[in-house]
Amino acid sequence: MLTLFFSPGTCALATHIALEEVGADYTLSRIDFGKDQQNAPEFLKLNPKGRVPALVTDAGVLTETPALLAWVAQTWPEAGLAPLHDPFAFARVQAVNSYLCSTVHVAHAHGRRGYRWADDPAAHEAMREKLPASMSACFQIIEDSMLEGPWMFGDTYTIADPYLFTIARWLDMDGVDMAGFPKVAAHFEAMQERPAVAAALKGQGL
Amino acid sequence: MLTLFFSPGTCALATHIALEEVGADYTLSRIDFGKDQQNAPEFLKLNPKGRVPALVTDAGVLTETPALLAWVAQTWPEAGLAPLHDPFAFARVQAVNSYLCSTVHVAHAHGRRGYRWADDPAAHEAMREKLPASMSACFQIIEDSMLEGPWMFGDTYTIADPYLFTIARWLDMDGVDMAGFPKVAAHFEAMQERPAVAAALKGQGL
Repeated sequence: MLTLFFSPGTCALATHIALEEVGADYTLSRIDFGKDQQNAPEFLKLNPKGRVPALVTDAGVLTETPALLAWVAQTWPEAGLAPLHDPFAFARVQAVNSYLCSTVHVAHAHGRRGYRWADDPAAHEAMREKLPASMSACFQIIEDSMLEGPWMFGDTYTIADPYLFTIARWLDMDGVDMAGFPKVAAHFEAMQERPAVAAALKGQGL
Repeated sequence: MLTLFFSPGTCALATHIALEEVGADYTLSRIDFGKDQQNAPEFLKLNPKGRVPALVTDAGVLTETPALLAWVAQTWPEAGLAPLHDPFAFARVQAVNSYLCSTVHVAHAHGRRGYRWADDPAAHEAMREKLPASMSACFQIIEDSMLEGPWMFGDTYTIADPYLFTIARWLDMDGVDMAGFPKVAAHFEAMQERPAVAAALKGQGL
């Protein structure tokens, strides 16, 4: 049995969608950021980093979206969510997820979580000011050199797709018009037509 | 044949060490950040993100350290650098690498690359001021809840080890005394005794 610790609309949505895609048997446990539950002692025992997603499995706790997505693909290989036995192709999928995690998500985080990297409120404001530009720069690279369409890797739906969708959902709040990235916008529309995406969004109350 | 595009001492060192560990046949191509070569048109053709590492393989270009490290482990499975056929154990290794990439490396980058997330020089200064605290917080988590010792995953050396070593090398420049993290310091010493690490450091002129 699996329990996914999540907060609605965060990057935990990517793993949630992947679990739906493979038909996993799981339950949800909501972490309320408004009550700082991610830093509560009982949650820090599960994940000392104080972040979501965290997935409790029979073998132990797993964290970090790129690791969780690859785990889903490996655990349900019949779902075909990653080219598990082609190291080059698998590395390309993982490179997309690593970029989304370490560059695009990080750019987004400067909008509301600037306190991670500076204490001065004026610095947080400077970060918020640059947010639309830095997110646009990331998505321009995705649009121009990564997203093959209709899915990230052409006709093959992979674990990169729910992750891109999850982060593309944040563009509006980051002050970026998705219409400026037509391939991303088409991907976003196509994702919403997948039953797994609809189920995950509904499960998170989104 | 492989060509690793690197800049000395950057996160490309992790992949460089891994290539040495498996005895890969590769050549090095240095990108001079001082001359902004990472943004030169010929390099952007290889990697539109304008970053190192980039690894040119016979099949194409690969980027992003966590993806490259897993690729090395998969391509030379006999080296045993990752538990490739145990999805849970593999996910734990990947979770460490994802944390190093998206949280620890990102914390470090606020020391010199604050321009990525804010335009105001005062904000860059505020980021530099917080750098020792944010890096220390990351390494406290590594020390307390991740690093089993002597290697990240106990007696088994994995692709997480060269990555931790690469980032631990930055602590001094980030104003953090590694001695405050005894397990990290012992790991750092043990790494330097590995021939692959010595070869990679020498290859980068470090």
